[in-house]
Amino acid sequence: MSDKKVTIKDVAKASEVSIATVSQILNGNSKNFSPKTVARVLKVKEELNYVPDYFARRMVMKKSKTIGVMVPDIANPFFSTLVRGIEDVLYQENFITMLCNANEDNKKENIVLEELSRRGVDGFIIASSAINNEDIERLLIKKKHPFIILDQKSPEENSDTIRTDDFLGGQLAAQHLKELGHEKVAVVLPENATANISKRLEGFRTVYQSNVTIIDALLTKEGGRKAASELVKTDVTGIFAINDEIAFGLYLGFRQLNKNIPTDYSIIGYDNVDMCEYVTPPLTTIAQPIYELGQQTAELLLDRIENPKKERVIKKLPVNIINRFSTTHA
Amino acid sequence: MSDKKVTIKDVAKASEVSIATVSQILNGNSKNFSPKTVARVLKVKEELNYVPDYFARRMVMKKSKTIGVMVPDIANPFFSTLVRGIEDVLYQENFITMLCNANEDNKKENIVLEELSRRGVDGFIIASSAINNEDIERLLIKKKHPFIILDQKSPEENSDTIRTDDFLGGQLAAQHLKELGHEKVAVVLPENATANISKRLEGFRTVYQSNVTIIDALLTKEGGRKAASELVKTDVTGIFAINDEIAFGLYLGFRQLNKNIPTDYSIIGYDNVDMCEYVTPPLTTIAQPIYELGQQTAELLLDRIENPKKERVIKKLPVNIINRFSTTHA
Repeated sequence: MSDKKVTIKDVAKASEVSIATVSQILNGNSKNFSPKTVARVLKVKEELNYVPDYFARRMVMKKSKTIGVMVPDIANPFFSTLVRGIEDVLYQENFITMLCNANEDNKKENIVLEELSRRGVDGFIIASSAINNEDIERLLIKKKHPFIILDQKSPEENSDTIRTDDFLGGQLAAQHLKELGHEKVAVVLPENATANISKRLEGFRTVYQSNVTIIDALLTKEGGRKAASELVKTDVTGIFAINDEIAFGLYLGFRQLNKNIPTDYSIIGYDNVDMCEYVTPPLTTIAQPIYELGQQTAELLLDRIENPKKERVIKKLPVNIINRFSTTHA
Repeated sequence: MSDKKVTIKDVAKASEVSIATVSQILNGNSKNFSPKTVARVLKVKEELNYVPDYFARRMVMKKSKTIGVMVPDIANPFFSTLVRGIEDVLYQENFITMLCNANEDNKKENIVLEELSRRGVDGFIIASSAINNEDIERLLIKKKHPFIILDQKSPEENSDTIRTDDFLGGQLAAQHLKELGHEKVAVVLPENATANISKRLEGFRTVYQSNVTIIDALLTKEGGRKAASELVKTDVTGIFAINDEIAFGLYLGFRQLNKNIPTDYSIIGYDNVDMCEYVTPPLTTIAQPIYELGQQTAELLLDRIENPKKERVIKKLPVNIINRFSTTHA
């Protein structure tokens, strides 16, 4: 594997014309040249397998047609579905998606954003829970990068905002458990939850008020599994898992403790990832339109790139409850 | 949001020195200048928030420190885990991962590879089932891009190769069903399977020879769900699902048909994604070291980039059976 790169000079030399002539012809300005010259240059380009240097062209065009997308964990089905929605729109618009995992690691997020920024991406979509407002100011706003942050503490004042109706989602979960007669309920969620997740708890509390047991857990299956052993120490019968991953973890945790779902514990999840249908019992959950959230986020960002001066957009997508078999009467 | 970009000229003007001076100082060659000048330039750089243009620098350095990674479906847990392994190594080595989904769509794969190539990535990792040998020749080999293709038909002659031992995996699955006394068995896999998947079937056949019912299915949960209604028309009792996603689909399909796992059907999967533990019954499967496969692939590619002339490397990673509760005696 040799490192020798074919340059425009090589094409000019082999075609016996000037570099300027090659450049004009390859940029589509052939009308000033004889058809024979044009044909010769194009043929030589093919033969030498010359690729115009993207970086050189980009310096002229000042457009990279690339969007940087940062997620905390691509292995989480919520984020992989979100990314599919984003990518499908960007691809249609001839944008390339540069996807990076940041593992909720603030240092990594900073490095990734700086590197993407240096690579001249046209905009950013950030779905992450570690980035803070100072980083946003320093890495994005100060550098005038168009961006949208999903799932975040409170960046609303700084950028277009699109979110699903987390408050309503929490309310729907609570109403469902209430209707089934559950009086003792728990919500399983992380300490220091992000704004969107806190909103779910807020919505939940409009039904149960302060009468809610809070159990800490990471937003993972393993987090849910561990929470089960805390839950069995309480007298709750209805459980709101703040995402489906936690709910799947509760399934395993309760099975290990010989508890049955839904007869011992009614569980309602959040997200409606596709696995909800495949677990036993199928998981009752609050459905977010995850794929559409990705699509609309990408559309919003592209629109902002085209129209940097337009007014800030705020959008809220609906959620709904999907009744399956993980909840029953108290 | 304004588009005005701060240039090296702005820094030079505000520092009252030449562009060449700014350039040298920002590139670390300060020794020719007075400490006062150096301090002033660095201060102005900060104040104006000047970022050296990555694209301009890259033209000089001819290194982008970027690896393009193409997967067919990031929502498949196999690929998201693989990508985590790849990214963790690349990040440690200060490489950025440009991840792209290609949806097993040959046209999209071609566009993505061309775009990544134009962006001057240092190398490619491709985990995809649609790319063919002519594309590999035209898009990678001819352009002298270092690359590794996972999961592929037969690109071994062209690049470093790393794979898990699919043949052994198929054998282990068959031996397990045989030991449990299953005489009538089926393998659920896609038509036109890729080489690695065909190897699993080959290994399986060393135990059961031609005595195997083949059921077609896409490599998805939905593919598995549909396959269940084909399987109930046969007299098989033991089933080898060629990946875990298909196995999860079989769980739902059989439940919808009121069939029990493992008493009606013993199912063994392949991959050992983390969800195997969380389904009911937990899935017996062949474990591939997916994360390690990602890590070693990234290491192999970086090594190739550093040492383009070294001999081709071929690696095979071990697999093993994980006994859970989805299989039982015939």
